[in-house]
Amino acid sequence: MTTVTDIATRTYNHSFRLDPIVRSLLDTDFYKLLMLQMIRRLHPETRATFALINRTKTVRLAEVIDEAELRAQLDHARTVRFAKKELIWLAGNSFYGEARMFAPDFLAWLADFRLPEYELRRVAGQYELTFAGLWCETTMWEIPALAIINELRSRAATRDHDRFALDVLYARGKAKLWDKVERLRQLPELVISDFGTRRRHGFLWQRWCVEALKEGLGDRFIGTSNVLLAMDADLEAIGTNAHELPMVEAALSRDDADLAGAPYRVLEQWRGHYGGNLLIALPDAYGTAAFLRAAPDWVADWTGFRPDSAPPIEAGEQIIRWWQKHGRDPRTKLLIFSDGMDVDSIERVYRHFHGRVRMSFGWGTNLTNDFRGCDPDGAGGLEPISLVCKVTEADGHPAVKLSDNPAKATGAPAEIERYLRVFGADGRIAQPVRV
Amino acid sequence: MTTVTDIATRTYNHSFRLDPIVRSLLDTDFYKLLMLQMIRRLHPETRATFALINRTKTVRLAEVIDEAELRAQLDHARTVRFAKKELIWLAGNSFYGEARMFAPDFLAWLADFRLPEYELRRVAGQYELTFAGLWCETTMWEIPALAIINELRSRAATRDHDRFALDVLYARGKAKLWDKVERLRQLPELVISDFGTRRRHGFLWQRWCVEALKEGLGDRFIGTSNVLLAMDADLEAIGTNAHELPMVEAALSRDDADLAGAPYRVLEQWRGHYGGNLLIALPDAYGTAAFLRAAPDWVADWTGFRPDSAPPIEAGEQIIRWWQKHGRDPRTKLLIFSDGMDVDSIERVYRHFHGRVRMSFGWGTNLTNDFRGCDPDGAGGLEPISLVCKVTEADGHPAVKLSDNPAKATGAPAEIERYLRVFGADGRIAQPVRV
Repeated sequence: MTTVTDIATRTYNHSFRLDPIVRSLLDTDFYKLLMLQMIRRLHPETRATFALINRTKTVRLAEVIDEAELRAQLDHARTVRFAKKELIWLAGNSFYGEARMFAPDFLAWLADFRLPEYELRRVAGQYELTFAGLWCETTMWEIPALAIINELRSRAATRDHDRFALDVLYARGKAKLWDKVERLRQLPELVISDFGTRRRHGFLWQRWCVEALKEGLGDRFIGTSNVLLAMDADLEAIGTNAHELPMVEAALSRDDADLAGAPYRVLEQWRGHYGGNLLIALPDAYGTAAFLRAAPDWVADWTGFRPDSAPPIEAGEQIIRWWQKHGRDPRTKLLIFSDGMDVDSIERVYRHFHGRVRMSFGWGTNLTNDFRGCDPDGAGGLEPISLVCKVTEADGHPAVKLSDNPAKATGAPAEIERYLRVFGADGRIAQPVRV
Repeated sequence: MTTVTDIATRTYNHSFRLDPIVRSLLDTDFYKLLMLQMIRRLHPETRATFALINRTKTVRLAEVIDEAELRAQLDHARTVRFAKKELIWLAGNSFYGEARMFAPDFLAWLADFRLPEYELRRVAGQYELTFAGLWCETTMWEIPALAIINELRSRAATRDHDRFALDVLYARGKAKLWDKVERLRQLPELVISDFGTRRRHGFLWQRWCVEALKEGLGDRFIGTSNVLLAMDADLEAIGTNAHELPMVEAALSRDDADLAGAPYRVLEQWRGHYGGNLLIALPDAYGTAAFLRAAPDWVADWTGFRPDSAPPIEAGEQIIRWWQKHGRDPRTKLLIFSDGMDVDSIERVYRHFHGRVRMSFGWGTNLTNDFRGCDPDGAGGLEPISLVCKVTEADGHPAVKLSDNPAKATGAPAEIERYLRVFGADGRIAQPVRV
């Protein structure tokens, strides 16, 4: 028996200096590019600081991830530019059925884009990782920063595994995901996409997961939020907007009355840039109940909502009642569920709303980082954590998110108090945040 | 991102003419070599015919496996010789704690050994595959013939699978086996070995399974019946003797009285060649009840028995009673269970006999060929079948096996009748034969 070893590959594998986690600026969520185009046009000079927040305090990231490795990955990400073929694809591809989504001047600006500087400190077993600078630059750190931390954590957790344990780990991960795929196949009108970039176990694993959904779910899998994977696998890039838009608008508001109108002003700005299926509102930045109570009637003309922190069935029922009150037929409307979903909750929500409203699922952490029960060494460290990267201030003003779930609120306590006075606290219910 | 493809490997993969299943004559069961040494010394001129028997009639092998491919594999196996390093290892290694198990003249004879001719015909959707010639040559076809048929069947079943389906198939297979390993780990005094060569899904898969047991069970995994894998992985080679010994001895007997003594004559021959833990008797060739009733007292001095066709707990109890009747302490004796075992039956038998007798498990088909429920395409063809290669005549006399399970009997009906008159039929109970 002859064993053929590719000596060049083996030598490279054993001597390379860095296995980069972020190798492309398209390896980010699509909504970042949509938002960025708008931010650059409306707020080219606004400064915004983003900061890493690890809500899973029990995991002491600075004790798990080596600081030098983290710096090396962040520094490497700063060297990456958009490739010419990536810009050509952004220019030539159609998104959500629309050609020329990105304006030539925006694409020209992207050609020179680099991720801005970062600040990294260790505080009480955690990393303080902040990105201060122009909003139109710092916003682009959110996804790569999260992907880097999560993948470095996975690498640390698997570092002591031998070849065989790794083989069993990934075999089990694949078997587990495919079992989920076979369950989801039972839902004939399912519409689902990958939202798992930020929390992924690793890039290659996310790519496998996306291929699995493409293979296993066919047309029911409508695409991925990851722009690079969408391009490489010829899938739709999926995503609309995030909390940072109302959070910055709110932070920049002059007084409480101005603050109260912030959530609707960003929607007006958004519909000035995008239309159709991109008209999806995120209702929970300052509480869904408050949002719906004060929302102008034209918000009911939008395609739909993405409830992101209230329990999905309650949130959906609340929004359906609001559409009905405004004389709209929910069956023409779309709800996008993306908050910590997994097969059980997808099945439950699908069955609950089936036939009453259009639905789409954004499947994140539990798609791209579910190795629970898979590690043959059982050493721990592979369970996903609740890690986010949020805007914390805009032009020197503190940024706040209330959320429907107080456990997901961010911002200084005094500011949270003020926001609660302006928007009210009704409907907010504390839920454990798992992922 | 750069993709590195080893062009030479890829070109080779896409243009090779044959992927040989048998690449070494050590890729066989250890008992064949032990038996061969004795056969060659005692029966150098005896002719014995072996034939393939597919007990799973519903699987029409000639419709599944291409005849040209089968011939190419059988022809290739006939070109294989023992390599020098393999003979050196057989000479220098100790087996069952004993050095120089194989005599120099036997090893010198092996150096020139080649598999003899075969005859292949298609009959009613099945292959008639027979090996006629000197017993000391034809006996060596048993394992390669079975391995070739089983692996060709696996290849046929997976031929239409794309890259992704294969990935999921093997991921599930690995996850399934590792779950079994974790259950077996709960049995602290387990003694188990791989007996899965003949029914394996494929050589590479058997190797993975053996590595999994070595990794997962540590000292509880005592070795493999596959001599090549034992050498490569530095494991013990495991095995003693098989039904062909009493079957040929019985076929060659002059009359009914001579026939009745055949099962004990082969044991006398065996103990003339081997000792210690190799003194394991196979009691079921002509029924365990008959064997024990007429067995001389010295058989109770042997290390143990390998019940191979009666339900394991009943067979074990029967043998324990026999030892007790002969004044031997079962706790010093060994029972080897190897008939279609899997985790459920291993657990059951282990718990039943724990502390009352020494036990060892030979885990075969359900170790190396269990892909039930693993195929994402669900096309079928991967479930193991009950395929054996048995001696059918010796020097022109028909060979017969009665077995404790009539479903496993082989031989011409008239001869079976005669054997039943000589040995009796008590204790024989029909059981479905699954693997």
